[in-house]
Amino acid sequence: MPEFLELLPPAEALALLLKHLPPPGPKTEIVNLTDALGRTSARPIYSSEPLPAFSRSAVDGFAVRARDTFGASESLPAYLTLVGEVPMGSAPGFLLNPGQAALIHTGGMLPEGADAVVMLEYTQYSRPGEVEILRAAAPGENVLFAGEDVQSGEEVLAGGVRLRPAEIGGLAALGILEVPVTAPPRVGILSSGDEVIPPEQTPAPGQVRDVNSYTLSALAAASGARPQRYGIVPDNPEALNQSLRQALDENDLVVITAGSSASTRDFTAEIISRAGKPGVLVHGVNVKPGKPTILAVCNGKAVIGLPGNPVSALVIARLFVVPVIEHYLGISASRPRPAIQARLAVNVPSQAGREDYLPVRLILQEGTWMAEPIFYKSNLIFTLARADGLLKIPADATGVEAGSLVSVEIL
Amino acid sequence: MPEFLELLPPAEALALLLKHLPPPGPKTEIVNLTDALGRTSARPIYSSEPLPAFSRSAVDGFAVRARDTFGASESLPAYLTLVGEVPMGSAPGFLLNPGQAALIHTGGMLPEGADAVVMLEYTQYSRPGEVEILRAAAPGENVLFAGEDVQSGEEVLAGGVRLRPAEIGGLAALGILEVPVTAPPRVGILSSGDEVIPPEQTPAPGQVRDVNSYTLSALAAASGARPQRYGIVPDNPEALNQSLRQALDENDLVVITAGSSASTRDFTAEIISRAGKPGVLVHGVNVKPGKPTILAVCNGKAVIGLPGNPVSALVIARLFVVPVIEHYLGISASRPRPAIQARLAVNVPSQAGREDYLPVRLILQEGTWMAEPIFYKSNLIFTLARADGLLKIPADATGVEAGSLVSVEIL
Repeated sequence: MPEFLELLPPAEALALLLKHLPPPGPKTEIVNLTDALGRTSARPIYSSEPLPAFSRSAVDGFAVRARDTFGASESLPAYLTLVGEVPMGSAPGFLLNPGQAALIHTGGMLPEGADAVVMLEYTQYSRPGEVEILRAAAPGENVLFAGEDVQSGEEVLAGGVRLRPAEIGGLAALGILEVPVTAPPRVGILSSGDEVIPPEQTPAPGQVRDVNSYTLSALAAASGARPQRYGIVPDNPEALNQSLRQALDENDLVVITAGSSASTRDFTAEIISRAGKPGVLVHGVNVKPGKPTILAVCNGKAVIGLPGNPVSALVIARLFVVPVIEHYLGISASRPRPAIQARLAVNVPSQAGREDYLPVRLILQEGTWMAEPIFYKSNLIFTLARADGLLKIPADATGVEAGSLVSVEIL
Repeated sequence: MPEFLELLPPAEALALLLKHLPPPGPKTEIVNLTDALGRTSARPIYSSEPLPAFSRSAVDGFAVRARDTFGASESLPAYLTLVGEVPMGSAPGFLLNPGQAALIHTGGMLPEGADAVVMLEYTQYSRPGEVEILRAAAPGENVLFAGEDVQSGEEVLAGGVRLRPAEIGGLAALGILEVPVTAPPRVGILSSGDEVIPPEQTPAPGQVRDVNSYTLSALAAASGARPQRYGIVPDNPEALNQSLRQALDENDLVVITAGSSASTRDFTAEIISRAGKPGVLVHGVNVKPGKPTILAVCNGKAVIGLPGNPVSALVIARLFVVPVIEHYLGISASRPRPAIQARLAVNVPSQAGREDYLPVRLILQEGTWMAEPIFYKSNLIFTLARADGLLKIPADATGVEAGSLVSVEIL
């Protein structure tokens, strides 16, 4: 198997795959703002108005002309004429002339003429129609000026951003109730293996239930894609060829978990290469688990062959399937991946020159997260169900010592 | 306002609230495994079978009796009689007697009599019907024994666990295709304020669009709850009283974002206390933003009053609303919150004795995440839309120096 002689590290293998994919397509859907959480903006969104739309008070207090308060102190207050109270929800209905002040509440509209607000705490009523200002206000103090949050015409949301509650709120503030989002990429998922049966069946001796279709569908859905399971393909080239071509027709990305026999692994790459150009780009990645990974592009669609064993398949799908889904969604790669800083509980050996991923459990001990590796044999799916995160051991390390501070990616 | 004189820190305030809530109810739904992602297990789930169901090979190689290989090496191979090939997906159909070996593929069922598998790499065909073993195998080597992943009767999933792809896969492996999950807690959301209008309307001078109903609904949905918006309540006690009672009838948790005027803030606590026992437990929390937070329990249901300004409301909802939703879901608090370790870009001052939360942007510089605080005036919702995470400054700190390593919770 000459393809295995020189294995690319995961990041380079992924870059090679992405380079051969077409740029994210223009498939856009318009969704209601209330359905937009977790979706990805299809294009930049611009504000057609300033926010705030008018200058507002940030506190409860008195709107003033700042220069009228210069030099004011507790011992030498500024005495201003009270001209009224700014009602909530409408314009003040009066101007503020020199020497005047108006009662204003948080969020109230600043009267024309005013340029600062003095907090209630620093004022005092003395006589009807008058207020004592006990502290000088700088121009702009406690005021949110019109357009300070967003200017009219400003880009408020870039394209390719996954919408969180804050973005939803920002769009509501601007009255943008329909949002152009990227259509979810369609991901076809094929399991292969003569020993694999659908989970609703009871396995006979030698048979195991299909796990990968379910874990990978869930991962794809969580990443913003629309997964479709194509069931279990028998371990023969013609069956795989037919299923692959159907899945390629109907999806943007096809994921195949290879049957476990060596012969299946061999013909899988061949079948993929025959399904479209340029075919297999990477066969074998310098990572554990996941060495037999296949990365391909067939006529503009990605095909990813994952190891058949459920733990490897799920770990490796995070390295390759999720980034490809994000590529189709148009998501830029710059958002940090959530992780936890933890101390490694035991020494972990690793082979230098190869990137390793190890499932770990995180245990809180006296305020510090301890990362306890789950040493496992492949194929034990509950290994991952018991894990909180994945520890990455870089290719240049020969292992990590107990007590080291490590970053654990949350599963 | 005597309630403000002695403010509880957020963690103590939350503990007080949770202490007064009834334990999570038994409201359970049965969902299909394919719909279970992100749902929370309502009770422990036990396996009714062992996993693997039979002893399997973890590699491609030859099934052997380990003792037949003892002392074997490249210069002194063990010669074993080849008795067949284990078919994938069914029982071998033969036993392994002393001196015998059988070809086996990854995942294949170990023949009776075999207790180890020698990898292909350490074997050699010499004559038909014979295989040379070039390395000794320890008993159990490269074998996944029946029940090694899960024993029959073992708890495979605790109650109160949010299902990730790995748990979905584990349940598929066991043929568990229907999952008892907790019904989503119902969260009623009320906005108040005479200046607040629905986002579909165009604000007149002095008016602003409702943001909080949208951000808080999104946050509640993302946390596993079923939010319902009750619209905008006018700033008067009777209107608030009516809306609150209706929302309490129809929900497990009611969130009110208070109108911004001082009088509203005052009567909100009173109205809540009149709606049920024990009423307001906490009025004012020692945190910035979010000091005017109200925490209450009315006849077994939680009521949370949040500051009216959108940034404070969303930050504080993460501290109080999300944990209450998780309480109703029965989720234990032990899972780590995803965060990013970053270096602070600038000095950040803070008032000693008060917990502060600061929105930050995360910027990757030469492999290190830099946390750049977004200094903001309250009410600017795009502050949060521009933030990647929240930096917590503990109560005992008077600030954090530039260059310090800080943990930033991902938004």
